[in-house]
Amino acid sequence: MSNGKLILMRHGESEWNASNQFTGWQDVNLTDKGVAEGKRAGLLLAENSLLPDVLYTSLLKRAIITANLALESADRLWIPVVRDWRLNERHYGALQGLNKAETKDKYGDEQFMLWRRSYDTPPPAIDPDGEYSQVGDPRYADVEVPLTECLLDVVKRLMPYFQESIGADLRAGKTVLVAAHGNSLRALVKHLDDISDADIAQLNIPTGNPLVYEVDEDLRSVSPSKDPLAPSGRYLDPEAAAAGAAAVAAQGNK
Amino acid sequence: MSNGKLILMRHGESEWNASNQFTGWQDVNLTDKGVAEGKRAGLLLAENSLLPDVLYTSLLKRAIITANLALESADRLWIPVVRDWRLNERHYGALQGLNKAETKDKYGDEQFMLWRRSYDTPPPAIDPDGEYSQVGDPRYADVEVPLTECLLDVVKRLMPYFQESIGADLRAGKTVLVAAHGNSLRALVKHLDDISDADIAQLNIPTGNPLVYEVDEDLRSVSPSKDPLAPSGRYLDPEAAAAGAAAVAAQGNK
Repeated sequence: MSNGKLILMRHGESEWNASNQFTGWQDVNLTDKGVAEGKRAGLLLAENSLLPDVLYTSLLKRAIITANLALESADRLWIPVVRDWRLNERHYGALQGLNKAETKDKYGDEQFMLWRRSYDTPPPAIDPDGEYSQVGDPRYADVEVPLTECLLDVVKRLMPYFQESIGADLRAGKTVLVAAHGNSLRALVKHLDDISDADIAQLNIPTGNPLVYEVDEDLRSVSPSKDPLAPSGRYLDPEAAAAGAAAVAAQGNK
Repeated sequence: MSNGKLILMRHGESEWNASNQFTGWQDVNLTDKGVAEGKRAGLLLAENSLLPDVLYTSLLKRAIITANLALESADRLWIPVVRDWRLNERHYGALQGLNKAETKDKYGDEQFMLWRRSYDTPPPAIDPDGEYSQVGDPRYADVEVPLTECLLDVVKRLMPYFQESIGADLRAGKTVLVAAHGNSLRALVKHLDDISDADIAQLNIPTGNPLVYEVDEDLRSVSPSKDPLAPSGRYLDPEAAAAGAAAVAAQGNK
C-alpha cells in the first residue's frame, strides 16, 4: 500500500488576523472573509478529488470552524474527527492580544522579528492570571498550559504526536486533512521539506488554502525542497498562496 | 463517581422534514429553520449549564451540522467528537424519497401507520440500485448497508454500541451529547424509560430540543416513566416539545 496524502490547511482569516493582533492560544472567531475561505477550501478539495478520510484539528474554533465549513463544501462531514491541543497555534506569551504594528513600533524591528521568527527564543511569558492566559481553561484540564512558546517548543510538542497519531493514518494510505495554524503548520512543513532551523524563519503559510503533500515512509515529502520560499507541497490555489504569503510577511506594517 | 448526563438532540428541521418526505438514510440538508434550531439548542445547553464533554453523531449531515451549530453557540466546539453509522436514522426502505401524505393516500391509514410505527415490521426493501439507496456510498464502506429497517432493527444495531461506547463515557461521569434522529433517539428513549414494544409507537421526538437524562448504572433513566407520552427526560424547551411532538404525529396529514 502506498502512503497517504497529507493536506495542511491554515484556518481562514480570524478577527485578530484582521485587527493585526498576536493571537496564539486565544480562541477568536473567523471573520466573514475567513468563513468564505473555509467554504472555498472545501470546493478546492472536491475539485481536485482530494477527499479526506480523516480530519485532525487543534482545539481552537478558528481551525475547527474552517474545517467544518470545508468538509460541508466537500460533502465529507461524516469523516472521523480527531482534536488535539498539540495542533494549537504557538503560544505567543505576553504578546497575546497586542497589536503587531504597535509592538513593532514600541520594541523595534529587530526585537519584533526575533519574537515572531526566532526558532528557539520565546517571547516573555504571559501573566498566568492575565486576560489572555489559557491557564484554567477547561479544555486544557489534562495539559500543562504553556505561558509562552518558540517554534522549537511547538516542534517538540507536535512532532511526536504527528509521527504516532497522524502518521499511523498516513502509513495506512489515508488522505489526512490537518486544520491548524500558521506556526503549527510551519513546524510540520519544516519536517516535511527538511528545512533548516535558520531557514524556517522565511516560511509563511497563507490562510484557507489547502497545501497537499505526498509523504514517504519517514513521513517526509517524497521530494523535499529544503527551500522555505518554495515548499514542495502543492497549494490548491497557487495564486492566492503567493499573495497570502506576502501579506503574512508584511504583518508588522500598519 | 456519579454517572453522567445524557443529552439527546434530534437534528433541526431538514429539507425533507419541510417537504414531508420519508428521509431515512438519505443525506439531506437543514432548512434555515433547522439551522436556527441548532443554534438555539446550543444556547439552551449553555443557559442550563449543560456543557457536553463529548459529542456522538450519526454519519448524516443534518445531525452533524445541528451539533456543530449547537456546540458553536455553547462555545464547546473543542470537545471530542465520535461519529458512528449506528446512530443513523431508521432506513425507510422503499419509502425513502416518497411524500408522506401521498403515501398515506395511496396505501391507506392502516398500512401507513404500520410502516411508520410498527415495532417489528419493516417497509418494503429499497431497490439497491435506486436513486435513494445508500449501497455503494463510501461512508458505509465497512458496513452492510440495510435495504429497509423497522424500529427493532435500529434497537439491535444501536443498543450494543450505546452500552459499550456511549455507556463508557456515561459511566465515567461525563456529560454526553448525542446528535441523531427521530427513530434512533426513540430506540434510546425506549431503553432509558423502559417503554414497551407496543407503547413506543406513541413516542414522538421533536427537532432541535435537547432532552436530558440522568442515568443509573444500567444506563437507564434514574426515574423511568414507562409512559411514551411523558418520557422522564427533561426537554430544555418544554413548550416547544409539546408543540413539536404534536406536529410529528400529524405528519401523515397534508
